[in-house]
Amino acid sequence: MDETAFATALEALRRDRLLGASELARRGLQALAESALGMAARDAASLRQGLRARAARVQRARPSMAPLVGLVRSWSEGLGDLPAADLDEARRRAAERAGELVARSRRAVEQAAAHAAAAIGPGKTLITHSLSATVVEVLRRLAGKGVRAIVTESRPLNEGYRLAALLSGLGVPTRLITDAQLGLAVAQADLALVGADSLLPEGSLVNKAGTYLLALAARDRGLPFWVCCEGFKRRDEEMPPLELERMDPGELGAPDLAGVEIANVYFDITPARLIDAWIDEEGVRRSTP
Amino acid sequence: MDETAFATALEALRRDRLLGASELARRGLQALAESALGMAARDAASLRQGLRARAARVQRARPSMAPLVGLVRSWSEGLGDLPAADLDEARRRAAERAGELVARSRRAVEQAAAHAAAAIGPGKTLITHSLSATVVEVLRRLAGKGVRAIVTESRPLNEGYRLAALLSGLGVPTRLITDAQLGLAVAQADLALVGADSLLPEGSLVNKAGTYLLALAARDRGLPFWVCCEGFKRRDEEMPPLELERMDPGELGAPDLAGVEIANVYFDITPARLIDAWIDEEGVRRSTP
Repeated sequence: MDETAFATALEALRRDRLLGASELARRGLQALAESALGMAARDAASLRQGLRARAARVQRARPSMAPLVGLVRSWSEGLGDLPAADLDEARRRAAERAGELVARSRRAVEQAAAHAAAAIGPGKTLITHSLSATVVEVLRRLAGKGVRAIVTESRPLNEGYRLAALLSGLGVPTRLITDAQLGLAVAQADLALVGADSLLPEGSLVNKAGTYLLALAARDRGLPFWVCCEGFKRRDEEMPPLELERMDPGELGAPDLAGVEIANVYFDITPARLIDAWIDEEGVRRSTP
Repeated sequence: MDETAFATALEALRRDRLLGASELARRGLQALAESALGMAARDAASLRQGLRARAARVQRARPSMAPLVGLVRSWSEGLGDLPAADLDEARRRAAERAGELVARSRRAVEQAAAHAAAAIGPGKTLITHSLSATVVEVLRRLAGKGVRAIVTESRPLNEGYRLAALLSGLGVPTRLITDAQLGLAVAQADLALVGADSLLPEGSLVNKAGTYLLALAARDRGLPFWVCCEGFKRRDEEMPPLELERMDPGELGAPDLAGVEIANVYFDITPARLIDAWIDEEGVRRSTP
């Protein structure tokens, strides 16, 4: 992957508003694997240097995405172990290690979903917000076992419509609601289950704006609120401070009015005190980690 | 107003999704005033009988709208006082009484807004949900006194865009957010202020879906949550049991998918325990009535 192709891949990461944080991380690793195999380098040392620089650029493309920052950092640190004398072998090993991390991330999502599905059991109605690949995997495992879903539009991009289409394909009976109906809909659910954009060190959840409202409504009605995600979603102290990205106000489609500012913040923070269980590839935790 | 024109007016009441409950009540009274002046009747007794039948039809057009049911009932009860011998005088008096009730309802909204504006004072940022004519009147009274507003889109019909346009016209600096950002936005506000579709006898609030979420977020952040509306918004024991109207799912604009039901419930109920003040034409109450 030459500089032009890499810059194009970076720009796609930067502009994406549809993929989950883990899938973005995997795409970043994929671009780095292709860089390892194809970028110009006169020897293994210069390859390592070049790849570290590209890894830093991938991390900076979406600094608020914990799995992207974490998985790429893990890969970048591993570059120290590359053979110093054999350029081709160094290329192969760097690409292989990126592939392993991608596979590990996919496996972690599947394991987390398996733990969640086992803990939930058959015959339940789950309410969720936004589109989480992990939550889809949980529902896939419970499909045909009496599971039902309540899903939100998830303005402004309405990724809830894509979630509803996925669940339609899986044969999961689904109710689609406006985000504003979350408070009404918790009364029809047994459990609130969401994925994560990231988890803060003390267990608070960064996820699509509106998740905090779902957690408040769930608590007010005595409904359990669970979060399910791979361990790489956890932010650590070395990551840049969390910044809630402000996106293009034009996404709302609202009229342009004098004196009216349009706010389009994608994420809100659900305090750990509103979360009843954290589920990742290691299992179900009922108290803050 | 002959039967055809009256049926058209009723149908407009039934189909309306934009006007507030009080304005709908005033339009209902207007149709009854025109009925009083123009419907066929051979004497005052048959006029009274005909008007009572039409009043019942107006109430049945939107049985969940407390002011419509309450104001029309009040008007219908007053028909007993019409002169029994003078048809023309009976017509005039019935129309006049409808006009008085319309004026009284308008005055009540203004007085409630005046009480709210005085209690809020200058320099505050108010967050609201949906479009309430009463809240607009409060903001009109505070415009130019440092007031700022945070308003939601209010899906599915986005009446928040019309509210933003009204506030733009009043020169009130305004931030427009998606409904899902309510939890984030309470952190930037001093007070949550909403109107009411109706109030239940024990003080709980029936209002646009999402109001309950705003009240939960306000309480979680220690923000006061106030409701301001005319006294006719209060439901009493004689009204039909509250039914949360389900509207046309097509309003969401969501795709039609096998096994996916689209829910479009307009109203939710905010329990009285989440409300810090009730304001009507008589003043500000800090405890449930």
